[in-house]
Amino acid sequence: MSISMYAASVPLLKQILQSLDAILGKAESHASARKIDPAVLLQARLYPDMFPLVKQVQIASDNAKGIAARLAGVGVPSFADTEQTFAELQARIAKTLDFINAIQPEQVNGSEARDVVVYKGSPYEMQFQGQTYLIHFGLPNFLFHVTTAYAILRHNGVEIGKDDFIGKF
Amino acid sequence: MSISMYAASVPLLKQILQSLDAILGKAESHASARKIDPAVLLQARLYPDMFPLVKQVQIASDNAKGIAARLAGVGVPSFADTEQTFAELQARIAKTLDFINAIQPEQVNGSEARDVVVYKGSPYEMQFQGQTYLIHFGLPNFLFHVTTAYAILRHNGVEIGKDDFIGKF
Repeated sequence: MSISMYAASVPLLKQILQSLDAILGKAESHASARKIDPAVLLQARLYPDMFPLVKQVQIASDNAKGIAARLAGVGVPSFADTEQTFAELQARIAKTLDFINAIQPEQVNGSEARDVVVYKGSPYEMQFQGQTYLIHFGLPNFLFHVTTAYAILRHNGVEIGKDDFIGKF
Repeated sequence: MSISMYAASVPLLKQILQSLDAILGKAESHASARKIDPAVLLQARLYPDMFPLVKQVQIASDNAKGIAARLAGVGVPSFADTEQTFAELQARIAKTLDFINAIQPEQVNGSEARDVVVYKGSPYEMQFQGQTYLIHFGLPNFLFHVTTAYAILRHNGVEIGKDDFIGKF
């Protein structure tokens, strides 16, 4: 017995992207109710040389579409990092979900030993087999950036809890 | 083709616990070099009603031993939450790693449909099958608390980067 590469990847990406979408919705409502300029939250960061919220969400989106695409053996769609509002970030998450939802289990299953290259052609290029990429690099990176987005908002007083992060599955 | 429940769980727990151990070591060195009372970092939190660093590490330890034990079908060892120093937290991580390292692949493999109960007998009791527990609840919770520990230290100026979080695998 064992689990499929699809079951270990895409449904979790969907779950947590949906959580992130809902968390951003709560952040926008929080800003609106307290007359906080949404840009203050979008540009908030935990330390001067850490990425702000908007970038954490962009990277989480990149991680999610990158995992799904690489395991499926299709090109990773490129999204311009132009979002400046909560609505735009939520639209990016929706686009990411649309891409992931179109990936079929049979495209991902069997990708355990598929060659995966990340940061191709750059000095940071990394080569993996699919299983190692997913378990040891892709998922921890994705969850790192979503958790950091959550932490930035929590640090700024947005009323969210871990149930918002875990979400529905 | 598919991946084993062991491959999707224990090696990632080990990887990230080892990262957390190294991150705590850097935090202690940082405190020492700057004559910061280590307790200031250990009790640091990102918001008044969030858990401090020490508790984030204790929960990450609980998550890790809970995942390994529940999937293996053995009892979850109970560790008292008494740590008050970086060395004590690192000792707890070492104890957690000892427990996890003793779990054999054959104990975890085949646990996809094993009944898993979390918070048993409490109002928060949750019932899962092993695969759903691991992918949708166990791993995201574990990575959430390690990332939050990282974020607390990063927010307090400890010089760590995402490579420290991903660690070696």
